[in-house]
Amino acid sequence: MSLLNRQLRLKSRPDGLVGREHFDLVEQPVPELGEGEILLRVLYLSMDPTNRVWMRDIPQYLPPVAIGEVMRALGLGRVVKSRSPHYHEGDLVQGITGWQDYLVLHDSAKGYVRLPADPGIPLPTLLGAAGMSGVTAYYGMTDIAPVQPGETLVVSAAAGSVGSIAGQIGKIRGARVVGIAGGADKCHYLVDELRFDAAVDYKADDFKQQLKAATSDGVHVNFENVGGEVMRAVLSRMVIGGRIALCGLISGYNSGEKPSDDYGIFVMKRLSMRGFLVLDYTKTKEAVHAITGWIREGKLKTEETVAEGLENAPVVLNRLFDGSHRGKLVLRVDAQA
Amino acid sequence: MSLLNRQLRLKSRPDGLVGREHFDLVEQPVPELGEGEILLRVLYLSMDPTNRVWMRDIPQYLPPVAIGEVMRALGLGRVVKSRSPHYHEGDLVQGITGWQDYLVLHDSAKGYVRLPADPGIPLPTLLGAAGMSGVTAYYGMTDIAPVQPGETLVVSAAAGSVGSIAGQIGKIRGARVVGIAGGADKCHYLVDELRFDAAVDYKADDFKQQLKAATSDGVHVNFENVGGEVMRAVLSRMVIGGRIALCGLISGYNSGEKPSDDYGIFVMKRLSMRGFLVLDYTKTKEAVHAITGWIREGKLKTEETVAEGLENAPVVLNRLFDGSHRGKLVLRVDAQA
Repeated sequence: MSLLNRQLRLKSRPDGLVGREHFDLVEQPVPELGEGEILLRVLYLSMDPTNRVWMRDIPQYLPPVAIGEVMRALGLGRVVKSRSPHYHEGDLVQGITGWQDYLVLHDSAKGYVRLPADPGIPLPTLLGAAGMSGVTAYYGMTDIAPVQPGETLVVSAAAGSVGSIAGQIGKIRGARVVGIAGGADKCHYLVDELRFDAAVDYKADDFKQQLKAATSDGVHVNFENVGGEVMRAVLSRMVIGGRIALCGLISGYNSGEKPSDDYGIFVMKRLSMRGFLVLDYTKTKEAVHAITGWIREGKLKTEETVAEGLENAPVVLNRLFDGSHRGKLVLRVDAQA
Repeated sequence: MSLLNRQLRLKSRPDGLVGREHFDLVEQPVPELGEGEILLRVLYLSMDPTNRVWMRDIPQYLPPVAIGEVMRALGLGRVVKSRSPHYHEGDLVQGITGWQDYLVLHDSAKGYVRLPADPGIPLPTLLGAAGMSGVTAYYGMTDIAPVQPGETLVVSAAAGSVGSIAGQIGKIRGARVVGIAGGADKCHYLVDELRFDAAVDYKADDFKQQLKAATSDGVHVNFENVGGEVMRAVLSRMVIGGRIALCGLISGYNSGEKPSDDYGIFVMKRLSMRGFLVLDYTKTKEAVHAITGWIREGKLKTEETVAEGLENAPVVLNRLFDGSHRGKLVLRVDAQA
């Protein structure tokens, strides 16, 4: 008896909401297993915002799903047949299964985790909190922007799969945690069930006022899942030296347009950026010593453009913006200097 | 004989270029010195892009200059009279002097650096490479985004006061340095005189192609002074895990409009942001162990929403964006699971 495998293959790229019309549902027999191969029955698929990004033909961290290709997705399957010594019938396997009923996998394939037949945890939880979503939250809060006891953490999309775990890890680490979510129900859920210190409804007219009231001492860490206006509001509440773990920008994923902010590339390329002001360096002796040394040794060349006359200061300043000088622009105020 | 002090006081806030009409030139006698005070003759004023920002009535890292106030600026002055034991006639003093001929300073005032009468370096250089501009470049390249030998560093506004030093420090540290500047003259200056490895003209029609050619192995560190389209072009060339020292965004300073990007707040508040993807964490055992432990101990609550049927995957995915579920959204593919 040959098994039938249903596959959802990308037919056209959605613009906005995703529909059945963007996929072909194809049925075909499951192939015979070769040496070292296993057959997985897909049990659960993880629904992730990043799936939506994979459908778009834009530069991203993995190649977009090609037209005609089975839609890529994380899933959990059970081994129903094995020609590999490393997998046994009944084993659970987590990894990229795609939107299909069955998957033939070679045991050398990378990125698949074998789990015991009974992992001691409900399977949907295994795909969520104990899977990619929870692990994402964990590293965001411990490695990317570790939150410290007593600090204020703001999590956006806080009732979601990653945000709900990130916020709770913040509580476990001793932070004051404020969640942003849409609607009163979710906000109550955050405070009453997940024990966040406060919740702010981004759909409310007074969202910014709510956020301000909930973060009266400023925001030390932002675990950001949303982007756009929500992120801008949080940034405006950050303390000096605040840190942002940029996990996702879901507000822009469904849009055919260019996202409303410039942050997407920071996720895609895992970039870090730090703004700075020299006035934070109050002891600059080391720097001045090094620089003057390099100047004397001829390793560092300097050039100054000297303009004249206090009364000319306003118009001289414009030269910074018209590209008409090189190096440092200074104004001589004392003609004898 | 009483000395006359000329002051340039902000009269109205410029929109675009700065003109004399935005300032009142006021003459008034220099007051008598009180105990502990010194009188500085201003010798040189530093012309800095941040001066332009200080004229704008927008949230920033220092209060904007008020209407009627002497324009704030860094300068270098010489002590011409002293009633303080800590300062002697002839000493040089660097700090905020403002746009005026003279400044009366109490010796307890913070932020002023006393220098010997003959510092052994030309005074314009003291205000530039050995002053705020050079120190800014130094900490950007050693503390904020230290560049390592063999890495590619891109510096924007590279012929400017900060950029020219930042790029040369990159060379001293063993990096391959690419400068972005406007026009062929400045580009030749960078390569021929400052010994940058390459220079790219942002005013050229083929700017992006030039940049791509000059950074064929990608960009490890960006010392950013410009923002806007120049910064976007550099970001598109960053390697995975690249670092950005965000020093300034001069492309937006002269504009009365909202800047064309969201990065200003990162400078103003010295924020750090790091984008991340969980797929970079290849060994997640620690995370899964911690999370499952917290779940068992009741410290972490999870919620899953389970939808049904492989064929429904496309429409179920939309629920991620409509806010209709909480926690993790999964799709059951095998009805028996």
